[in-house]
Amino acid sequence: MTLEDVQGRPDTRGIALDAVGVTGLRYPIVACDRDGAKQDTIGQITMAVALPAQVKGTHLSRFVEVLHDHATEISITTLPVILGALCDRLSAPAARLRVQATYFRERHAPVSRARSVLGYDVTWFAATDGDTMDVEFGVHVPVTSVCPCSKAISDYGAHNQRGHITVRVRTHSRPAAAAEPLWLEDLIDLAERSASAPVFPLLKRPDERHVTMLAHDNPVFVEDMARNVAEQLRDDVRLAAFGVHAANDESIHDHAAFATVESPRPGSLIDTAWNRP
Amino acid sequence: MTLEDVQGRPDTRGIALDAVGVTGLRYPIVACDRDGAKQDTIGQITMAVALPAQVKGTHLSRFVEVLHDHATEISITTLPVILGALCDRLSAPAARLRVQATYFRERHAPVSRARSVLGYDVTWFAATDGDTMDVEFGVHVPVTSVCPCSKAISDYGAHNQRGHITVRVRTHSRPAAAAEPLWLEDLIDLAERSASAPVFPLLKRPDERHVTMLAHDNPVFVEDMARNVAEQLRDDVRLAAFGVHAANDESIHDHAAFATVESPRPGSLIDTAWNRP
Amino acid sequence: MTLEDVQGRPDTRGIALDAVGVTGLRYPIVACDRDGAKQDTIGQITMAVALPAQVKGTHLSRFVEVLHDHATEISITTLPVILGALCDRLSAPAARLRVQATYFRERHAPVSRARSVLGYDVTWFAATDGDTMDVEFGVHVPVTSVCPCSKAISDYGAHNQRGHITVRVRTHSRPAAAAEPLWLEDLIDLAERSASAPVFPLLKRPDERHVTMLAHDNPVFVEDMARNVAEQLRDDVRLAAFGVHAANDESIHDHAAFATVESPRPGSLIDTAWNRP
Amino acid sequence: MTLEDVQGRPDTRGIALDAVGVTGLRYPIVACDRDGAKQDTIGQITMAVALPAQVKGTHLSRFVEVLHDHATEISITTLPVILGALCDRLSAPAARLRVQATYFRERHAPVSRARSVLGYDVTWFAATDGDTMDVEFGVHVPVTSVCPCSKAISDYGAHNQRGHITVRVRTHSRPAAAAEPLWLEDLIDLAERSASAPVFPLLKRPDERHVTMLAHDNPVFVEDMARNVAEQLRDDVRLAAFGVHAANDESIHDHAAFATVESPRPGSLIDTAWNRP
Repeated sequence: MTLEDVQGRPDTRGIALDAVGVTGLRYPIVACDRDGAKQDTIGQITMAVALPAQVKGTHLSRFVEVLHDHATEISITTLPVILGALCDRLSAPAARLRVQATYFRERHAPVSRARSVLGYDVTWFAATDGDTMDVEFGVHVPVTSVCPCSKAISDYGAHNQRGHITVRVRTHSRPAAAAEPLWLEDLIDLAERSASAPVFPLLKRPDERHVTMLAHDNPVFVEDMARNVAEQLRDDVRLAAFGVHAANDESIHDHAAFATVESPRPGSLIDTAWNRP
Repeated sequence: MTLEDVQGRPDTRGIALDAVGVTGLRYPIVACDRDGAKQDTIGQITMAVALPAQVKGTHLSRFVEVLHDHATEISITTLPVILGALCDRLSAPAARLRVQATYFRERHAPVSRARSVLGYDVTWFAATDGDTMDVEFGVHVPVTSVCPCSKAISDYGAHNQRGHITVRVRTHSRPAAAAEPLWLEDLIDLAERSASAPVFPLLKRPDERHVTMLAHDNPVFVEDMARNVAEQLRDDVRLAAFGVHAANDESIHDHAAFATVESPRPGSLIDTAWNRP
Repeated sequence: MTLEDVQGRPDTRGIALDAVGVTGLRYPIVACDRDGAKQDTIGQITMAVALPAQVKGTHLSRFVEVLHDHATEISITTLPVILGALCDRLSAPAARLRVQATYFRERHAPVSRARSVLGYDVTWFAATDGDTMDVEFGVHVPVTSVCPCSKAISDYGAHNQRGHITVRVRTHSRPAAAAEPLWLEDLIDLAERSASAPVFPLLKRPDERHVTMLAHDNPVFVEDMARNVAEQLRDDVRLAAFGVHAANDESIHDHAAFATVESPRPGSLIDTAWNRP
Repeated sequence: MTLEDVQGRPDTRGIALDAVGVTGLRYPIVACDRDGAKQDTIGQITMAVALPAQVKGTHLSRFVEVLHDHATEISITTLPVILGALCDRLSAPAARLRVQATYFRERHAPVSRARSVLGYDVTWFAATDGDTMDVEFGVHVPVTSVCPCSKAISDYGAHNQRGHITVRVRTHSRPAAAAEPLWLEDLIDLAERSASAPVFPLLKRPDERHVTMLAHDNPVFVEDMARNVAEQLRDDVRLAAFGVHAANDESIHDHAAFATVESPRPGSLIDTAWNRP
């Protein structure tokens, strides 16, 4: 029995769609890290294609087929390949892919060297309109931040809290051959350098003493964290663009303070405002 | 045209249901506070009745009708009334109601007295099996906590963070006539006394200095916060039971520390607050 | 005792920040609706200003002061006023404000006319760079959608599910005097017209029969929902821009299908990709 | 330099704590499945011990050490081992462990046999008071449900939606030697049998036709889903207890309907799954 391809019906409204696809798709993926090692993790996937005005619908099952075929290797080098497969499989003029996952790194406590593993929320994003290929990736890095104002105006102590630094970078579509690629690990390292202290899953007493004083010696406002990251990225010739979002879960309030910088500046004020990971 | 009452069909599986109802229902409600004032807020509602083994289904629309009729006054005194209406309207042997809402209080900064408003997550819960009527209410209170260990072992500074104290109480079904009722405001006050310092939406510089030093002078472990609350509740003759859950969003980790105490002790290890899908 | 204005210190990194402010601030607000009536609701607030390169930090407490002064009237007409106050209070060249809230409307069941109240997630957004003033607002509308493909290829039945239509509009900074303003209620109405059927908190049996058949008679793909909304907005002279995001919580999958259209098309593929409410 | 063991200080308040530990700890784990295969996944971990009245605090770093040592094998057989390690390492009279994770299974579309992978939210829980050892595990299974009332009272069509069945079981501490163990896969299978139809990540057109008609032929209320599960578990001699929570994301409402059954019945109305802060 042949079943009608209802999606293939013509559409007369004359409205092309920027994106049609699937989102909230949870899938086992394999991520490649800086050391060439691979780690099994779990992706939250959004895949979409542009739909021309004259076509009624796309074929959603094909997105899952393409994902199933490519989930065993996710990295900034494979994303364009997956986009190509999407455009082919769905006869689409443009396509997008976003993969959000937990990315684990082994951490060593600063004094005892005790080992543990910390998970970071990472995002890979790629989009093509057939001609250009944009690739972005980013990472959310939990940190410790000590408030410089609180420290300066108080006789002792200083309020501090868990902070969050999200760094996003867009690489050039045609990187210079010589250029050493930028890795998630690099973004994590520079984010942790930009706060009062890193966080660790496992700290023994000498480690706790160390991070307490390290943080107290390096107070930073949320503005400082955003600027410290931007300072390390603004001259990076490998980057076409970057964005930083720093936030503090203020320990003296029940709300957060935040600071953002986008480079280059977005064309529209609105685009950034709605434009938060 | 008469439409069949499908829910009214008989059921032969011989399985009575503990609870059947609606959840995730968002509704405008009016909450009564200690000063007799009323505040408009938003309730997240769960309502359920017990379903005897021989009945196939309940009538979900009637839950919304009962809620719509009673949403203009939510307090521990009106919950039993609503439960009564549920049992009548649905011919049910037992019923339950949970209302989660934001409850606002005006806060004055400790030095400048600057005014702002802080929202607290509150929960009202009531259940009846026809004979007994259990009523619980609770509140989640954000606080500041300074780590005593970090302070003691470091030459200067001390890690601190936003903490969360959730206090739940169950009042006696037949309170002693003379007893002054316990209010949400009372639970908020005793929770804030149990931490290193309260949090405020608005703090000017002299206030920030004050709370920074206040917190540093009163370091508490998450265990201390739970015990400080329990110490104030354990001899309260108005209470049939209480539960405390204290947690710290550790600023040196990306996970939380927590401590709980339930009085009386739950019968089974499994029947505890945090063992739930 | 004078306390140093640490935020006022100079900064030498030469990095201006696009936005510095507070987020996750929960506050009681009063929203104005189409009929001029006001409703008490709860706002989730994000407020920010631009920070020049030479200034170390902003003064976060002033954001809360400005909000506290203006929370009693939130609408697209008052947002610019609040932004003006932010720029003045913080001596800032640019400012932004986002208010997310629940907005309630009374609903009448289609046949029985039974009354209930449905809450919608709404967002108001405004941004100014001193010269221009951009104002956006949007609403998330839950709907029912029946799959045209499932209906066409099956002998009986059709899978359907809860859908979600988010409509965002940006009005002209200088609306034509004659123009009737566009209201949230208008966006809700056109979104509900764009799906298979609206949803209601309360439906009696004749209503359930009605919406079941209404939806079955009007099957729509997620692409259709997005286009149906866009078709009603594309020629609206009051709008400088609009965006539609339609999604279905597919009942035959554990993931969602979605479709988006932005008008005018965003300059960069990436800007839309990260650009979801 | 010796650092004081602040947690080891005596406490005089006379309040023992039911649970003190860590929560929200994200860790890479290896889960064992029915076929003996192992899968790498990500655990959300809660670990706690009971704290006697006379001790001020516990040592949180030791929880992470124990987890790090045992994360490479998580199953109902290894949980008691981990609890033993916790009691030893922390000199605790009682301990608890909860692991929440995504558990993947390959799915084959019903007609095309097209392959994809579906992730399920699973929970393992174990608690010991030194004498007894309670072990629970459960799984959340997304399904499709067609409303019997809507189908019966309408001339055509029937509203349906994504449903959610959560099944929890507690096994006997000393299972009969001969007993075949119960697996997560068994719970998933019986939950899917209890709904109108299973869900699949990937369905081709013939599959969509199949599941549409399969679901329409098997309408179930949320009450039916809960009872269908309970019917398959109530006589299972391997179980000491079980709980079922079924919910439907009603496609004609913006709220959910739910039904629960616990066996044996909880002692107190308050001690039920959904009555928790």
